Amino acid sequence: MSRLVPAEELDRRARALRARMAADGLPAILVLQAADLFWLTGSVQQGLAWIPAEGPVVYGVRRDPGRARAESALAHVVPISGPRDLASAIGAIGLAVPDRVGMELDVVPVALYERWRKGLVGVAIADASMAIRLARAVKSPWEIERMRAAAVVADGVVRLASEVLREGLTEHEFAAELDREALRLGHQGIVRMRGFNSEIHFGQVLSGPSGAEPPPGDTPLGGEGPNPAVGKGAGPRRIGRGEPVILDIAMAVDGYIVDQTRTLSLGTLPAPLAAAHADMVAVIAHAQDAMRAGVPWSQPYESCCALAASLGHADRFMGVPGALAPFVGHGVGTELDELPVLARAFKDRVLEPGMTLAVEPKVVFPGLGAVGIEDTFLVLPDGPAERLTLPAQQAFEV
Amino acid sequence: MSRLVPAEELDRRARALRARMAADGLPAILVLQAADLFWLTGSVQQGLAWIPAEGPVVYGVRRDPGRARAESALAHVVPISGPRDLASAIGAIGLAVPDRVGMELDVVPVALYERWRKGLVGVAIADASMAIRLARAVKSPWEIERMRAAAVVADGVVRLASEVLREGLTEHEFAAELDREALRLGHQGIVRMRGFNSEIHFGQVLSGPSGAEPPPGDTPLGGEGPNPAVGKGAGPRRIGRGEPVILDIAMAVDGYIVDQTRTLSLGTLPAPLAAAHADMVAVIAHAQDAMRAGVPWSQPYESCCALAASLGHADRFMGVPGALAPFVGHGVGTELDELPVLARAFKDRVLEPGMTLAVEPKVVFPGLGAVGIEDTFLVLPDGPAERLTLPAQQAFEV
Repeated sequence: MSRLVPAEELDRRARALRARMAADGLPAILVLQAADLFWLTGSVQQGLAWIPAEGPVVYGVRRDPGRARAESALAHVVPISGPRDLASAIGAIGLAVPDRVGMELDVVPVALYERWRKGLVGVAIADASMAIRLARAVKSPWEIERMRAAAVVADGVVRLASEVLREGLTEHEFAAELDREALRLGHQGIVRMRGFNSEIHFGQVLSGPSGAEPPPGDTPLGGEGPNPAVGKGAGPRRIGRGEPVILDIAMAVDGYIVDQTRTLSLGTLPAPLAAAHADMVAVIAHAQDAMRAGVPWSQPYESCCALAASLGHADRFMGVPGALAPFVGHGVGTELDELPVLARAFKDRVLEPGMTLAVEPKVVFPGLGAVGIEDTFLVLPDGPAERLTLPAQQAFEV
Repeated sequence: MSRLVPAEELDRRARALRARMAADGLPAILVLQAADLFWLTGSVQQGLAWIPAEGPVVYGVRRDPGRARAESALAHVVPISGPRDLASAIGAIGLAVPDRVGMELDVVPVALYERWRKGLVGVAIADASMAIRLARAVKSPWEIERMRAAAVVADGVVRLASEVLREGLTEHEFAAELDREALRLGHQGIVRMRGFNSEIHFGQVLSGPSGAEPPPGDTPLGGEGPNPAVGKGAGPRRIGRGEPVILDIAMAVDGYIVDQTRTLSLGTLPAPLAAAHADMVAVIAHAQDAMRAGVPWSQPYESCCALAASLGHADRFMGVPGALAPFVGHGVGTELDELPVLARAFKDRVLEPGMTLAVEPKVVFPGLGAVGIEDTFLVLPDGPAERLTLPAQQAFEV
């Protein structure tokens, strides 16, 4: 499988973005952020992508056009050092800077924005974040194949996890074994996130009460973490018998991520936790059926919450009681935190075929830990969503 | 060693920042970014730090004040959900929002900034980036102890590297073994970088010609990388005999990073590369002697370049010929890309005791690879800088 993004795939993406640009009245977009740059050019050399409503996408590279040309199938890869030579560089291929340009205002820092705003004299800057994020949310068959490849690696890590988990291993040691295997199997190491301050290393290994530690942000689980500088994830705790071990992995292969969680245990789980895990398997099955083209993003969230509540988990579904994460699923692709988001607020946006989402029903039992499951799904033109991640949907007893 | 940052250490940091605020005429700073938040509060729960010119630092937490209170030694840890309740929350402890507030405009995205700008009615927002970055650049003895602990782990990884390196191992496989060892020894997994689009996973393993691949950004070395989505670092190449293997590791332990590079080889290096490596050892020795309190940041850069040129490396010092990285060293601490930067542009800023810098003289031989060395140093009140990283300053033949 070639690691390069084909020209026709890049062309499809530009067309998808142009449809959103037309709807938003954006005559051009200037892209600076790495994940967006990769999506539009197939490469992440320091530089920019220029997407005009009409005409070719231009990949402007500050540093090494040679490497960029080898990596990108775009026809126009040119040196551009900054705002001052944008107009002349794109002018050379018959393009002009219009009086309104979209930028990724959700991620571009103020100082960098100001440099471009001042450099593009007479140009009004608009926010193109939603146009880009919505266009990226719908994956092509080519992209879905990449996610299937990542799913194979993620499955391999769960298989290894069942082999290496043993009493007395610390969360750190367990995570280190799995991280090594993931890298050997093709994990690219870097997992991109869009949210400010969002960061992840490989995933989370949380055992027993560590799984019930509150997270620093809007995620269901936190974990003790290695230290307060990180404040989440695997920590020094030794894994014991009969407690839930959460293995939440963000697996990135050739730019594409799948997100997957399984609950493991040494020996049997306490009955209430085992029952709660079975309930979460029922919730994810419900979500898979509910994620259909045309359905509002809020709907699977509402119905998953209702189902979890009917199973007795109202106050512990998606987090620590009193601080529940306000969603049950999130888009995933070249970033871990993409659109759509399955949450109450999104009543007016609907699921589209090709959208890929990680759904992660989890419950927290204070003092005991967390149990739950997470799979990455693909929204189909008709019927329930297709599951992309592969491990059996069960708790794994070792 | 406790993982919590002591109250007196946090107090020292606030005082250091207040000195910079006074110089810049900033009556208060609002901090949102994780690395800055950790530096000021000892914790990274989603929220903010409020630093008034007079009065206590306030840690405002959006999500879980309980965990924040356990992690932070600050006296004032309060719930704050956003711009609307900042004034009332700090008002409850006798503080007020002045008409001018500094923010981290180098890292805060435009959309988040706009939310605060609109929420803080009648307040002018100023850029506090340099005040914060300069204050953070000078480390306390407590911080330097953390960096020494990270140096011990980084040393352990080099030791293991010499044991596991063997012919036919791919860069990925080699990196996976080292990453596992690093995590087992205490590496926290996440390495923070401040620069937009800057990202790193553990470090770089580059072998032979891969070490001569141009980097996507302003670093000396690139590497083939796993794919064009990452575009740098370890790749699928099999490591052969008689070629340089660059092991550049960013080791983060309890929030603090050291940056270190060693060149290894299976058998002997070709004579020109071995000679160039010896030259880089001479350059780093020169840099160590040149990094003295009161010296302009540009000076070690200029003299290192001059020395490298006199040794015959003018066109390959710090990168691929034609695209040399414009620096020879960078600050390191809770982020990998801190101030100071040893580069031509910084003629007007001087080294201060307590500044910590990674100096990384490297040369690239197109088609053959890169050789070089990197250590993290501490600027002392008098005399040459002290080396914090531990491995012998030599090429390691396996």
